[in-house]
Amino acid sequence: MAEPSNPDATADPVYRAAAIDLLAVVAYGELSAFERLVHDARMATRLADRIALERMAADQFAAVEPLLERITELGADPLEALAPFEGAFDTFHSATAPSTFVEGLVKAFVGDALAADFYREIAALLDEDTRRIVGQSLDRHGQTDFIIGRVREAITDDPKILGPLALWARRLMGEALAQAQHVAVDRDALMGLLTNSGAGPSLDLAALGGMFARITELHKARMAALGLEP
Amino acid sequence: MAEPSNPDATADPVYRAAAIDLLAVVAYGELSAFERLVHDARMATRLADRIALERMAADQFAAVEPLLERITELGADPLEALAPFEGAFDTFHSATAPSTFVEGLVKAFVGDALAADFYREIAALLDEDTRRIVGQSLDRHGQTDFIIGRVREAITDDPKILGPLALWARRLMGEALAQAQHVAVDRDALMGLLTNSGAGPSLDLAALGGMFARITELHKARMAALGLEP
Repeated sequence: MAEPSNPDATADPVYRAAAIDLLAVVAYGELSAFERLVHDARMATRLADRIALERMAADQFAAVEPLLERITELGADPLEALAPFEGAFDTFHSATAPSTFVEGLVKAFVGDALAADFYREIAALLDEDTRRIVGQSLDRHGQTDFIIGRVREAITDDPKILGPLALWARRLMGEALAQAQHVAVDRDALMGLLTNSGAGPSLDLAALGGMFARITELHKARMAALGLEP
Repeated sequence: MAEPSNPDATADPVYRAAAIDLLAVVAYGELSAFERLVHDARMATRLADRIALERMAADQFAAVEPLLERITELGADPLEALAPFEGAFDTFHSATAPSTFVEGLVKAFVGDALAADFYREIAALLDEDTRRIVGQSLDRHGQTDFIIGRVREAITDDPKILGPLALWARRLMGEALAQAQHVAVDRDALMGLLTNSGAGPSLDLAALGGMFARITELHKARMAALGLEP
């Protein structure tokens, strides 16, 4: 194990609470994404598609373990740390249950990547160890190639799904932002870190604006990759 | 890679078809068990239980990959090889949808182990490479300790669930045998291997009887471990 890059930061209880919150929100997000991917995989009409999506899900589950270990290292109970985030994710998934396999693919791609962009922005404010663990956990090892290929294939096969799928992706973005706001309002430590807190760097309002602009740009690039935006 | 222990056996098309069938039935069984475990995990009222069951599921998914690789090595398309077994497993899972988390635990423990006992008996008739790959895939690394502990805890908390749970376990055994018979009737190569075929060893009726007796004994031992039988 490497030494903590910034032992003073993790010794500060406010900072530590924020780091634990970030680890926990990522962990619960991956856990619930795992469950939804396995659920949605059953909509596949080809066994190959089903297995491919389940392979992504299993990798996502494997990414949860190191986060739980880091939460324990920081002195918290992982299960207690995850509990506050159940509501927001469960609401998100209920509000965005895909009705077709391709909608499920778009959700896996867009939702997962949006969340990852957001977490990476927050992790940039944290100590090196936590940042590295979060970064590794979010790394999907190019699994997105399968999704991009399959969504483009589905659009080629049936071009009239393009409009509804583009709307679907926009709805996913809207629901994700709504749930992120709920989490932000509830979790003082996490938001203290983002806007202003004792230990470590933080973001002022202009920087927050910059963050959302970057996330929006990345979302647009993904829409273009899927063929859902010009 | 080790050399095939018995290259003549895998060169025989009838033998190879049987080996592919066994690998495929194990793979599809683990794949569908994975999906059901993740689905049933949502009935957990404790996050720790949910994660524990999902960890078992993810391990089960990881066990599928080497089987698919071996099917490819034997010259078949893994997805085509799995397809004939979808019906039997889907019927089994529909007929045995647990109504509580503890029923889900008993199903995971009993169903998984029953299937594993059966596959190990068949694998004993196959070449060393296939046998080793099937054996490794079925090895659950002591995950059953969690299930045994949780089922016993639930019975201690509420002793009146004991009778219904014991009935549930018997129903699982009955449904598993019924589906195994359907598979046996449908898959000539697999049954040819068991009863009599050109290449390699096989079982006569007395040996088949011995096999079922051994599987029944192991099932009884598991019932006792769960506290469901004296």
